Amino acid sequence: MKKIKVGILGYGNLGRGVELAVNNSADMELVGVFTRRDGVQTVSGIKSVNVKDILNYKDKIDVLIMCGGSATDLPVQGLEMLENFNTVDSFDTHAKIPEYFNAMDKVAKKSGKLGIISVGWDPGIFSVSRMLFGAILPNGTDYTFWGEGVSQGHSDAIRRIDGVKNAIQYTVPIKEALGLVRAGTNPTLTTREKHSRLCYVVADNGADKNAIKQEIINMPNYFADYDTEVNFITEDELKLNHSTMPHGGFVIRSGETSKGNNHVLELSIKLDSNPQFTSSVLAAYARAIAKLSCEGKTGAVTVFDVPISYLSPLSGEELRSTLL
Amino acid sequence: MKKIKVGILGYGNLGRGVELAVNNSADMELVGVFTRRDGVQTVSGIKSVNVKDILNYKDKIDVLIMCGGSATDLPVQGLEMLENFNTVDSFDTHAKIPEYFNAMDKVAKKSGKLGIISVGWDPGIFSVSRMLFGAILPNGTDYTFWGEGVSQGHSDAIRRIDGVKNAIQYTVPIKEALGLVRAGTNPTLTTREKHSRLCYVVADNGADKNAIKQEIINMPNYFADYDTEVNFITEDELKLNHSTMPHGGFVIRSGETSKGNNHVLELSIKLDSNPQFTSSVLAAYARAIAKLSCEGKTGAVTVFDVPISYLSPLSGEELRSTLL
Repeated sequence: MKKIKVGILGYGNLGRGVELAVNNSADMELVGVFTRRDGVQTVSGIKSVNVKDILNYKDKIDVLIMCGGSATDLPVQGLEMLENFNTVDSFDTHAKIPEYFNAMDKVAKKSGKLGIISVGWDPGIFSVSRMLFGAILPNGTDYTFWGEGVSQGHSDAIRRIDGVKNAIQYTVPIKEALGLVRAGTNPTLTTREKHSRLCYVVADNGADKNAIKQEIINMPNYFADYDTEVNFITEDELKLNHSTMPHGGFVIRSGETSKGNNHVLELSIKLDSNPQFTSSVLAAYARAIAKLSCEGKTGAVTVFDVPISYLSPLSGEELRSTLL
Repeated sequence: MKKIKVGILGYGNLGRGVELAVNNSADMELVGVFTRRDGVQTVSGIKSVNVKDILNYKDKIDVLIMCGGSATDLPVQGLEMLENFNTVDSFDTHAKIPEYFNAMDKVAKKSGKLGIISVGWDPGIFSVSRMLFGAILPNGTDYTFWGEGVSQGHSDAIRRIDGVKNAIQYTVPIKEALGLVRAGTNPTLTTREKHSRLCYVVADNGADKNAIKQEIINMPNYFADYDTEVNFITEDELKLNHSTMPHGGFVIRSGETSKGNNHVLELSIKLDSNPQFTSSVLAAYARAIAKLSCEGKTGAVTVFDVPISYLSPLSGEELRSTLL
């Protein structure tokens, strides 16, 4: 069988993760890494190409995996690339998904390409679980917990405070809340009861640490609704103890099928590297997009629309005899 | 929108569970319960019909949910019913799935109907998780644990022993093994290290309890490879403490994306009623089969072939805005 030819657009943590994932997949071949920078040295040695020249690869790539950010990169690049390539992206601004989906669908219907948006773990396989669990147990309640892991948005918010040199923020699910949910008690939980926030901050020399702490814990939206712990550490300690990117989380649904018969379904993930795991999900869905596009499917789709067998390199026969 | 018209074939625990699940689904309507017995009184009051007359319902049923057993009922009924109805079944003899699939596919291709086989939790949503996890983490190891819950096969095996009046057997996952797997250590586990077996036995008056115990713990395939605990109790105690059907289990995959970056994915379920939960899975897949059949799909399929959105009564737009 011919290998699926993959391109990577953007070469940060996510792009490097996709490079690993594609090289781990015997049925895929990495064609090139496309970036806005010239002369980027890739980990695997695959050539990097300036994104300006990407149209030269129009007929050499089956699927382009988009590794830019949701805030500014994807809303522009996604639409642009879908005019010429099948795409996979990890657009994760939940509130803007419907708008982004509609814009992508319009482009793809016109170009005859296929684009899957919002792939990863949340949105992504967490969404798949929420949907599956809810379809099976219609009379129930959903809970999603995140962590323990680094939130880039919250870390950035701390870094913008005067007197802060660097910072890392961990989102931490609260064990007691998880315990109540797992016990099937269907509790009503406030924001504060579900997650706490743990901050490691490097202050500038002579900065007012108490003022920084007060600004963090009272910051609206980001911290004010949570119990927040602030620890001041040195830049060296930050590098030594907080430079990996672990993450994780839990999707739990608890619901009844009849009076007194309750069921609890849970997907939990524990990741050593958030970007490498997200990249592995992107690579699996790139396989599905290549297959669906071959069958003639066009437009925008999400994880909800893909038959799960399309994610696997195995045949239907192999899947039925080994995994069913 | 028109409701999906559902028939139930077989009215044991599973059939009664499907009756509940369909009545819990606003987009479904129960047309009838079909059994080999006459005059069966149903829980919801829906009429029961002798299965001999089922062809009168050929045009009144969108999907027939098969609630018979895998050993003798389904291999005959499945093929027979698929000649005239779209079907959903819970065929769970893992080793015979490929053969059953091929036979069903042949019938359905000829009749123009659609049949999904092996729906439930294992095979079923556990299979979906094994496949999804493996596609994302190709370099890893799968583990499936079952329990704590009643195994009908093992309970029946004990009941066949001379001197045994009644018995219930629980399959129990071993906590230490679960802990090692969750820690990402990828242990090699023997059968004995993964599950233990817990038996509650009612002996006939005057029976040799020690002989019964020895026969149980040394029974090949069923018990000899496990640590088995045998407790003798009275018939009253059995009825009082062991008449519900809780179950559960765990699918765990642990795998690396690069040296030192390991990830652990886990689906866990805890069920108060095994048949009611299985029935709820069957009802959700009945919805998918009705939709796929409307689109013209025919043949045999499995849980691997169904886009997950087809399980939900919500539209693609609603799913994207609320669950993605």
